[in-house]
Amino acid sequence: MSPSAIPIETTSCLTDKGVSHTLKKAVANQSPLADLNASLCMTALTQNPRTVPEPNSPEVFAQKTCTDHMITCSWTHTEGWKAPELKPYGPLTLMPTASVLHYATECFEGLKLYRGYGGKLRLFRPQRNCARMLTSSTRIALPGFKPEELLKLIVKLCATDGEKWLPKSRPGTFLYIRPTMIGNDSALGVQKPKEALLYIILACFPNLDISQGPKPGLKLLASRDDMVRAWPGGFGYAKVGANYGPSLLAQGEARAKGYDQILWLFGQDCEVTEAGASNFFVVWRTREGKLQLVTAPLGEKIILDGVTRRSAIDLAQSRLSGKVSNGHSNGHAESELEPLEVVERHFNMGEVLDASNEGRLVEAFAAGTAFFIAAISEIHFRGKDIEVPLKGGDMGLYAGKIKGWLKDIMYGNEQHEWGLVVDEE
Amino acid sequence: MSPSAIPIETTSCLTDKGVSHTLKKAVANQSPLADLNASLCMTALTQNPRTVPEPNSPEVFAQKTCTDHMITCSWTHTEGWKAPELKPYGPLTLMPTASVLHYATECFEGLKLYRGYGGKLRLFRPQRNCARMLTSSTRIALPGFKPEELLKLIVKLCATDGEKWLPKSRPGTFLYIRPTMIGNDSALGVQKPKEALLYIILACFPNLDISQGPKPGLKLLASRDDMVRAWPGGFGYAKVGANYGPSLLAQGEARAKGYDQILWLFGQDCEVTEAGASNFFVVWRTREGKLQLVTAPLGEKIILDGVTRRSAIDLAQSRLSGKVSNGHSNGHAESELEPLEVVERHFNMGEVLDASNEGRLVEAFAAGTAFFIAAISEIHFRGKDIEVPLKGGDMGLYAGKIKGWLKDIMYGNEQHEWGLVVDEE
Repeated sequence: MSPSAIPIETTSCLTDKGVSHTLKKAVANQSPLADLNASLCMTALTQNPRTVPEPNSPEVFAQKTCTDHMITCSWTHTEGWKAPELKPYGPLTLMPTASVLHYATECFEGLKLYRGYGGKLRLFRPQRNCARMLTSSTRIALPGFKPEELLKLIVKLCATDGEKWLPKSRPGTFLYIRPTMIGNDSALGVQKPKEALLYIILACFPNLDISQGPKPGLKLLASRDDMVRAWPGGFGYAKVGANYGPSLLAQGEARAKGYDQILWLFGQDCEVTEAGASNFFVVWRTREGKLQLVTAPLGEKIILDGVTRRSAIDLAQSRLSGKVSNGHSNGHAESELEPLEVVERHFNMGEVLDASNEGRLVEAFAAGTAFFIAAISEIHFRGKDIEVPLKGGDMGLYAGKIKGWLKDIMYGNEQHEWGLVVDEE
Repeated sequence: MSPSAIPIETTSCLTDKGVSHTLKKAVANQSPLADLNASLCMTALTQNPRTVPEPNSPEVFAQKTCTDHMITCSWTHTEGWKAPELKPYGPLTLMPTASVLHYATECFEGLKLYRGYGGKLRLFRPQRNCARMLTSSTRIALPGFKPEELLKLIVKLCATDGEKWLPKSRPGTFLYIRPTMIGNDSALGVQKPKEALLYIILACFPNLDISQGPKPGLKLLASRDDMVRAWPGGFGYAKVGANYGPSLLAQGEARAKGYDQILWLFGQDCEVTEAGASNFFVVWRTREGKLQLVTAPLGEKIILDGVTRRSAIDLAQSRLSGKVSNGHSNGHAESELEPLEVVERHFNMGEVLDASNEGRLVEAFAAGTAFFIAAISEIHFRGKDIEVPLKGGDMGLYAGKIKGWLKDIMYGNEQHEWGLVVDEE
């Protein structure tokens, strides 16, 4: 059974049904307006090509370098989407009264362009990012669009800059793709922006997947009661700026105390939600002896519907659960790993602590685009240090297995429908 | 007893103690860096002076017109605050990767410059806005500063542009002052910005205080369970962009249904918190017969510590509570109005509904800088329309009284320590 055939839970905003519903609502409000249309894109190539930095050089770690070009597209409430423009990368001009600078009318996506070992460029399940961008833009009072048109624009920019910025001589490298939408209406009133700008940039990004510290694994600091990331009825599920700025204070305190990220808890019983800006997974054995991969559910919409999260769940279900589907055993069954059950449910720090105290905690990891699959080695919670095993050395065995499979798909070692090949121009 | 001598509740972030604490924490992290210093401000006046629009003209309603000048000041994490610059109003240039465009690292203030009837320019309790700006900037991982230096910069800009943009021939008019701070660090990583920009602009703003509709009073739509503005442990008390963008969707739905603003509720028992971007007050009679002015408390930090809110409370306590302080009756005792008790406490829609059903609901109003004191005529809550009396015609008698006193102080009809006179240059 292919991973995409696994039923996606109905609460996901990234299902076809979800997208269609979100889009219908958005389009209903702007029906006579022009849709986003990638085929209208005008191209003006740079006359001042820039130098590609070495992978993982200080310049790359600074995370300020983008490729030669960007795509921009303006929207107004009277006309809709104008023709997109592919043009030289450069600064934006905004009036000091611009909506985005005061009211956080902004959302973004994060995905990567991979240079595969076979020489091809690939995107990884980009349809999900484009669908989520629509969920985010319409949550933050920015315009809707057809996700497939955004995808075409992303592909166009990648096709233009990919060959130079991800040379074939450097297989296994990637660029970070950042589609962004901002309200650039210069009216100061607190209101839905009447003008917006969509833009796509490609940034040189360090490989955070490589362990940096003296000890492998991330050290997490559990959030305090007075620092709550998201709330039911809020917007924790959307990739809007309003979820990030308010988290930086806690993140800074964590770093000052020697931790890598915050483990965001929710509610009086300290439910585990996210780790930093990634989704959080734990592998434990229940008291009844069942081995489980557990992550928080999406139902209350306080958790980001991560593409890496969903892919880890999908792969674990199809390749690690020990189930045989359609009468065939799947080709990836790994005999050396004990099968586990994949569970999306609420769980809290008390359960993690009990599992640790009783020797049932197997491993934990964070999953997201920027940090990819990152092992967790320690969680500090209310005065207690919970050591998380790293049985594979650098990371747990299950995290390592899932990470390997994902990498194989991203870099084309495994031909898989999740990998979208980008033809270079 | 002067209003400022009334003890300010200890949870307020705007007390001297609160400011000192916030500033100490902020300064501790940047001690060798340059402080914000208004005396270093460099001036470059415009060569292209602009035309002042007519009050309440379409141009003013568009809320896009600012005065001839603005003040900007840059901060870096290695040097601290640079010299401020007073310069011609114009666009800002930001890299597409700028922190503020992705992570909502932004905060602002809103206050007004009033042209008094005696010909003088005045600010109203601007110290509180400057103190709150510090609370907001440090909550959103932006740098701290000495609030009194921000005040000096605000005064300088007002002194420069006030004479032309608020001519003495137009007493009773105002400009809207918008101090803003943004993270303009061009590093794309999710982290505390290493560069920031403080800027102050003066915008022409319509008088929202004048009733626009066919019927006086605002119509409020109570928020749905799935639209929560702020939560304990969040940032509802800070004037950060992240509180505004996420509210626009509900606001847009309210307007589409014919309401003026959302009445933001919180929790399962539908606690009343804020109205639109203003604080909410209700006057009711208890079942025991006590007349009360009630507004939500600041304790959980889900409510903005509004300057108009605080001033309304202060004036009601000193002039409407019927209490005689220091052995002297105060000169403003208004015999025509029955004294009331001022109460900051949690209250919910059930209580408002009961008061309405039992004929105990006296009036309700919103209090904020933009909408000033705005009467509320109707609240729609879960299928029920609650009619709110407007005994004074356009607004309730208590709201009208408080509004009148505030206006007198703002426009200098009453000499009061809350009014800070700006000397024109």
